[in-house]
This record gives sequence, C-alpha cells and structure tokens, in this order.
Amino acid sequence: MTGFTPALMQDYALTVDRFLDHGAKWHDAARVVTAGGSDDDQTIGYRDLRDRANRLSGALLGLGLGPGDRVATLAWNTQNHMEVWYAAMGAGMVCHTLNPRLTLAQLAAMAVEAGDRVLAISADLRPLGDALMAACPSLEHLILLDGEPGQAEPRVIDLETLIAARGRSVAWGEFEETTLAGLCFTSGTTGAPKGVGYTHRSNYLHTIRSLQADAMALTADDVILVAVPMFHANAWGLPFAAPAVGASLVLPGRVTGGPALDRLIRSHGATVAVGVPTVWLGLVDHLDLTGGDLPSLKRIILGGAPCPDALLQRLESRLGVTVQTSWGMTELSPLGAISPATAQPHARRGAGRAPMGLDLLLTDEAGRPLEEQRNAVGRLKVRGQSVIQRYYGAETSALDAEGWFDTGDLAKIDDAGNLALAGRSKDLIKSGGEWINPMEIEEIIGALPSVSLVAVIGRVDAKWGERPVMIIEPTGDAAPDPAALRAALKGRVADWWIPDQIVAVEQMPLAATGKINKTQLRAVFGDA
Amino acid sequence: MTGFTPALMQDYALTVDRFLDHGAKWHDAARVVTAGGSDDDQTIGYRDLRDRANRLSGALLGLGLGPGDRVATLAWNTQNHMEVWYAAMGAGMVCHTLNPRLTLAQLAAMAVEAGDRVLAISADLRPLGDALMAACPSLEHLILLDGEPGQAEPRVIDLETLIAARGRSVAWGEFEETTLAGLCFTSGTTGAPKGVGYTHRSNYLHTIRSLQADAMALTADDVILVAVPMFHANAWGLPFAAPAVGASLVLPGRVTGGPALDRLIRSHGATVAVGVPTVWLGLVDHLDLTGGDLPSLKRIILGGAPCPDALLQRLESRLGVTVQTSWGMTELSPLGAISPATAQPHARRGAGRAPMGLDLLLTDEAGRPLEEQRNAVGRLKVRGQSVIQRYYGAETSALDAEGWFDTGDLAKIDDAGNLALAGRSKDLIKSGGEWINPMEIEEIIGALPSVSLVAVIGRVDAKWGERPVMIIEPTGDAAPDPAALRAALKGRVADWWIPDQIVAVEQMPLAATGKINKTQLRAVFGDA
Repeated sequence: MTGFTPALMQDYALTVDRFLDHGAKWHDAARVVTAGGSDDDQTIGYRDLRDRANRLSGALLGLGLGPGDRVATLAWNTQNHMEVWYAAMGAGMVCHTLNPRLTLAQLAAMAVEAGDRVLAISADLRPLGDALMAACPSLEHLILLDGEPGQAEPRVIDLETLIAARGRSVAWGEFEETTLAGLCFTSGTTGAPKGVGYTHRSNYLHTIRSLQADAMALTADDVILVAVPMFHANAWGLPFAAPAVGASLVLPGRVTGGPALDRLIRSHGATVAVGVPTVWLGLVDHLDLTGGDLPSLKRIILGGAPCPDALLQRLESRLGVTVQTSWGMTELSPLGAISPATAQPHARRGAGRAPMGLDLLLTDEAGRPLEEQRNAVGRLKVRGQSVIQRYYGAETSALDAEGWFDTGDLAKIDDAGNLALAGRSKDLIKSGGEWINPMEIEEIIGALPSVSLVAVIGRVDAKWGERPVMIIEPTGDAAPDPAALRAALKGRVADWWIPDQIVAVEQMPLAATGKINKTQLRAVFGDA
Repeated sequence: MTGFTPALMQDYALTVDRFLDHGAKWHDAARVVTAGGSDDDQTIGYRDLRDRANRLSGALLGLGLGPGDRVATLAWNTQNHMEVWYAAMGAGMVCHTLNPRLTLAQLAAMAVEAGDRVLAISADLRPLGDALMAACPSLEHLILLDGEPGQAEPRVIDLETLIAARGRSVAWGEFEETTLAGLCFTSGTTGAPKGVGYTHRSNYLHTIRSLQADAMALTADDVILVAVPMFHANAWGLPFAAPAVGASLVLPGRVTGGPALDRLIRSHGATVAVGVPTVWLGLVDHLDLTGGDLPSLKRIILGGAPCPDALLQRLESRLGVTVQTSWGMTELSPLGAISPATAQPHARRGAGRAPMGLDLLLTDEAGRPLEEQRNAVGRLKVRGQSVIQRYYGAETSALDAEGWFDTGDLAKIDDAGNLALAGRSKDLIKSGGEWINPMEIEEIIGALPSVSLVAVIGRVDAKWGERPVMIIEPTGDAAPDPAALRAALKGRVADWWIPDQIVAVEQMPLAATGKINKTQLRAVFGDA
C-alpha cells in the first residue's frame, strides 16, 4: 500500500469479519432472533454469536479446510446459517450460498463448478443434502444446522457437536481485502446460472453504502425482519449491515407466510421489514383477515421484483409504514438503487436513486450512450465499487470495452435521478424491424381483475421476424375472452404490438426466485 | 489488486473526486451558497462547481505543478476555496489547508515543512499572504480567491483570471487510492504543530462512515450550514459528504457571528448546522435579543470542544432542534464518535458512540489495557480506517507497538458504548505520586457565574513534585474571592486537589482554534 513513501494513514483492510467484531464489542444489547415455534424462538447477542462463529472457523480448519476453500450452505435464514457465513468468511474461506428451491441437477452443477468441500444444510433439507453429497464428489463433509444435536455419522456432523468437538478460537482477517468472501449463482431465469464472486472489499463497501440515510438508513434502534433469503444475494447485505450499526435481526427460518411474519414482527417489535413484494402481500392479506395491526413497524424495503402500485399503496395505508422501493441484481452485491424513506410518495414509486458508489449509463441497443440520459428509455449499464467484473471461472470479462456491466435491463431516469425499470432488454421482441416492449403490454393486462399472471414473449415469424405471444394465468377457472384482452390494449399500445396469439395456462412456470420463467415459455411457445 | 487469479469484482479506486462527480451528475438541483452581503450571496450547482474545479486542475497543471505537489490554502469557507480543494485533489496534488488565525511565523514553518508551491488565499488576507510568500521560498504563485477579478501581477493572479487564461478540462482520479489528498497541521495547543496527511482512501472511507444514519445522517433534502472552518480537519468532511449525498451547502465565509448565521439559515432554509459550541452560543444569544425563530433548522452537530450541558439544553429548547454531540481529532479525519440524532436526550450528552470503522481501547498511564473497558476512566487509544499512522515528514510511526494511536485524551465508556471525555492525559498533574485531573476542577469552577474561563495546570513543587495552579478570567471586572472558589471545590474533590495558588488574569491566552493555550500558561505559571 505504501509505494516509496511511508504510509501516513493506517492500513485497515476492509474485511467483513469486522462487522461482527464491531457488533460484538459495541452492540451486545442487540439480538439475533431465529423463529422457532411461538414459544421457542432462539435468541443470541452479537458477542456470543461472534464467539460461536469464530470457534466454528477453528472447527472448519480442524476439518482440514484452509483459506480459499469453498463452504456451501443450503439453508434458511437462521442464526446457525449466519454463524457459518462468518466462520467461513472470517477465516478467509468462501461461503457459497445455494438456493434450496433449485433442482438437484442445478445445485449439483453449481457445487461441482465451485468445488465445494463442505455443505452446511438446514436439518430439514437432509434428503436434498444427501443427494447433493452423492452428486458432487468434491463435497467431503455435511454439517447439519438448525436442528437438534445428534449422533455423528461418517462425513455427517451436526453443528453443535462440531463446535463442541473441534471448535477453537482463531484470528480472523489478516488477509488481503480483495480475497473472495462469497459466491452466489444467478437464478438463470433466461440462461445458464453464472457464479458471482463477492470479495471482502466489495461486501464491505456495499454495506456502508447501503447504510446511508437516503438508502437503508439502519440504526442501533432498528429491529430488522429479514424476509429476503440469505441465499439470495447475501440477503441484500443485511447480515453484514445489522452488526455494523448494532441493529437487531429477526430471521424467519423456512416459513415466511403472513401469519408467521405477523407473529414475528409483533413478538420482537420489528421496525423495518425487508423482502420481495409477494411476501408483504401475504402479510397484509393475513392482517385483513385477522384485523390486527403492527404498531412497531415503520418501514418496508421492497426489492427483487417490480411492485404494483396498488400493492404499494395498500401496504402504506393498511400498515401505516413508509415503503422504500429498490432495484438490484446479484451482480451488484445486490443494491443498485433505492428510494429514500423521506422522499415524496411519487418519488418512492420507481426503483429509487443510485447512492454514491454506483454509476449508471443508458445506451441504445448497439451499445452507444444515449445522447439524452434523462427521460428516455435505454439499456442500463453500471459500474462501481461492488459490481461484477468477471463471472466465477469465466475466461473473459463480464464488462464492455469501456468497463461497464450491462444489466440487461431497460430503464429511464428522470431529472431528479430517479430510476424506473422498463423491462428486460432480452425480452424485447423485434417485429418488422421495430421493437416491441413486452413489459408495457404486461403492465396493462396484469392490471385486469381476470388475469393473475401474464407474460409476453416473441415467436419466430417467417414474415415479421418475430411476433408477440401472450401467455396468461387466469384469476378464476375460466379463461378471459381473448377479444376482451385485445380490446384492453387497443389505443394504449400500437396496433401492431397487440399479440395475435393468446394462450391461457393453468399454472405459469416460475423460476426458483418466484419470477416468471420466460426461458421455459420460449421453449414451449417461441417456435413458429 | 488481483494476485494470481483474475479479479471477480470491479476495480474502483476510492478517490474523493468521485464525490463531486456524483453530485454533479445526480444532484445538480442542490446548491452551494457562499455568503456575501444580504443581497449578493453567491450560488452554484455541483455541475458548474465541478466544471470550474476541473478546469482549475488544468490551470494548476499549466502553472507547472504536477501530481504530489502541495497547494496551500489560507481561506474562509467559500465556493472558491472548495474549488481549489477539488482542483488540487482531483489532479493528484495535495491540498494543504492553513489556518488564517495562526501567526506568520507558525504559517511559514508549516508552509516550509510542506514545501508548498502555490498559495491560494481569500483576497481579504492579502497582506498575510504576501508576507507568507516572502517567508516561504518554495511558494511560486499566489492565487486570490473570493474577490473581484483584477490585474495579474508577477506571481499573483486572481482565480477567475487564472481559470479564463489557463483553465482546461482534465481527467480526474487515475491514481492509487492511497495517494495523499490533504495536509493539515494540528493546532499545537500543547506542543509544536504536526502535519496530518489524509489520503484519498482515508477521506473516502471517513465520508461514507460519517453518512450512516446513526452518525451525520445527511440526505439530499438537507441544507448544511458549515460553520466549522475548512482549514480545521477538512471542515469535518462536509465538502466531501454533501455532494456524495446531494445535500446543499451554505458556506458562511469569514463572518460567523450570530446575526450572520441567523440570516444565512433563514435565507437558505438550512436544516443542519455544524460547528463548535461557541458559534451556536453566539447564534442563540442573538436570537434571544431579536426574538426570531429558525423553523427550517432541525439539527445541530456539535464538536471541537466539550459543550456545557446548560448550553446544549438551551439550544434544544430555544431552537427546537436536536443537538448531536461528537468527538474528533485532526488525526482521525476527524470524526471519532457522535451521538445519534434519534438517541434519548441523556445519550446525546457525552461524545457519542464510535461508528463502524474506528475501534477504541482504554489503557492505564503505562499503556496497559484496562481490564475493565467499561465505566472506568482510562487513556483513550484508537485505530481504524481513517486514523493517522505517521505524521508528515516524521521518521517514526505515531502508533504504539500494537498499532494503536494514543489520542492523549482520558475517557470513559458506558455499557451502551457511549464515550465521555474526561480531560487530557498530558494535563494530568502528579502530586505526591497521585494524579489530579484538572478537568474535574475546571468543570466545577467553570460553572460559577463569577468565572468566565478557567484552567488548572501543574506547577513544579520541590516537596510534592507538582501542585495545581488555577488561572481564571473573571466574568466582570472584579476577581472573585479565592476563598470562595476553594469553598466551591470543598467536598466535591479531594482536599489535596484544591489549588494552593489562584491567579486572576484579564484575558485568558487562547490558541488559534479558540481553545485555552495551556502551553503558554505553563510557561508563565508552571515554574516554582
């Protein structure tokens, strides 16, 4: 770091173990709560959690692992899962989070590519874990989390037994801040999953960036309900951010339905709740049924998918909270933009603004920067301190020649810097040499009471190149009249955008993240 | 950065020019206001300020300066001063801020040690600037700020003429983040001034650390009155923090009396005001006289000196604001600790908590860590991401063998992590082998209506080693009765702490920062 003159400021590596160290030393009054049943939620302070995670680092070293080795997790949001994170990262290993809702084949492909040596699973996922062990030869040990201490079997050990048998305190940190800390494969709704490798530095900078008052604005007074999974882009960084400011965490485990979240918010006085829109829809539906209120809750931070305006307004009026919308990607660590809690309601409707540390650029489809970067739709590219450079194991850079990462999103930015997403670039349909944006059609049709889910994709067409096909999942049993759907579009989009073919399906195919799986739709409906 | 594996996350150097770039691109609606008279305050947006500063970088290069060269400033809080900062730092030069309230001899010693090549001064400081040019042979150019464009003289040019004649846009950044950005000499109330060199990285990390919701919590809605001088530890980082979040700045120029601040807050709707306690005393005295209110003002962030509890309560009740106390040092960039705006009143009385990025350790006078780090007074040591390692030009480290920087402060930390300062370690008086803490005596005597200022120092004593001497500046013309002063101490401190000798002075000697100059008091009253 010093060059030829002695450094005038202290060397201080930006490593994520410092977050938990900070929480343990200065904020031991904060709690990490893991949902059990109504009477047996599990509670721990940061000092004890840090001690356990640190001793677990020693146990992992005792199993023969070393710096750079990959420790996979297949687990819900729980204290034990968080302990594995810090145990691996603090010791310079790589924590590879796997999504239990993926198929065995997908999980095995990821574990093999990562070369995972240990698999830590929530005990209720034991069958999937065993199958994965069998499918991935590099996996040597299975660690059971979130369950009762049990008998150790060959290659299988529960967490408590492991800590008791092999735990010892070790020094954390003491490696370069650019060391890999985490690995997360993208969901691959539209292609093969790709691994995103987070470094200690990128996670550290992402964390303090997200803590700004116009971003997540978390404080030592907050109790954060983390409904976004820890296997989904680091749970948006909350297991780092909370000990860094001394906030309490409420981890819901496997169950994130309305009744469970209602009970957790109420029991532990959650002030901030973070997750995808559908989770909060479940919560507010439940509260409408039971008539309850959640007086402790002040804010909901939404992300992961666009939120219908009606749901957003319903959340704010029914719960008396401020809703902050956001936009992110696994490749962005994940926070891209967020609307400030203090913004006027209309400015909290889009995807928010990009806090310091990320820059945005809009280009045309050929990659040329739009001359007008405001109030025009373009292809969204980004660069910044916590943005991917290269996918795990890739031979080539993920960036363009100017160093920008192409998000694949279409977006618009207003004069005040507010970002609004406008569909996926790869979802665009080229018909007669002109572009059709499926998102505009989907928004109109999706607002109809008769339609539960809708997707518009391109079908190969001999004359026009592509023509739009609309797939809908009806709300009730009867499929709505195609003529009525076309009539709803008439005058609101160009006539030639209106789909010729409309198909009703019983169940829309969804990817593991809950998003509509357009890859599968294209395979079925995309050919002529 | 990459080692032998290709980097998976983007390289993104933490350099301060990015703050102004961010403000210019995303927050051009924010304003930087510089006080003129009542009708001619000067206003600019971040885009124009960035363009001017960037062209000024080109002009400095045109004068023959290059990366690493030192550009000194001797100036008030103004737009032009801020432009020089970014012009120098953005181009990889070092901005050396000088305090106009120091003597010529002190300034010359600093400029010579720094080897400054350019001196940028507020035009009203021209005589001092000329004298400094004469006293420091390395100074080649004098740039006049904050004034009218004038005739260029040999080696003297005003800013507008310089930008018009030589300004050109240049690329900012593109150097290592550990490059030196700033230089600031400590005030030296108790010793020779020492230079603290800030790097781009240390300033960048200090900025995003201070922006946390439990720290300065600045937002794009804020209008920040910066009453702390830009020559005093980077004005606590506000010229970096404001464009980073899109907040507006109000820069008061030379005049920081009550009437001037009242007008500025009112005219520009300031929401946050930042500065030392005496400044706000002047403001509230003025408002009591005129009967005005400041409805836009929500918060005052105090620092630089301990604030009497009575003043703090008066500010909160008279102004209807939340007061956040803080503690910092030039060597800490400067923020050490701050009380959260949302904390309960009693928790906003001390020095606050240390946000993530700085660690604290209490030791005894021999440097051994106190066994009990809570609720006991010890010598305060720190380490962290924006803490000094070595003074400018020093041959040896400023840290102890374990890497801690000794602040020289005595402090106590409560169970919740709240820091309370308890005097300066070097002010302690050793009498009969036991310690006397002057601060405890000064707090009792300073609260008496008859006493305006008080200082207790040690006098060499043949029998006891040292004995305390109390120097007071009375409130009125008549010196208070020494017997009455001793009676006020009786029963509140140990009998042997009570000063034998009490001296009344007409005017207490003050250092350039406004603190009592104990070095000078010791020279006069410290010998037997």
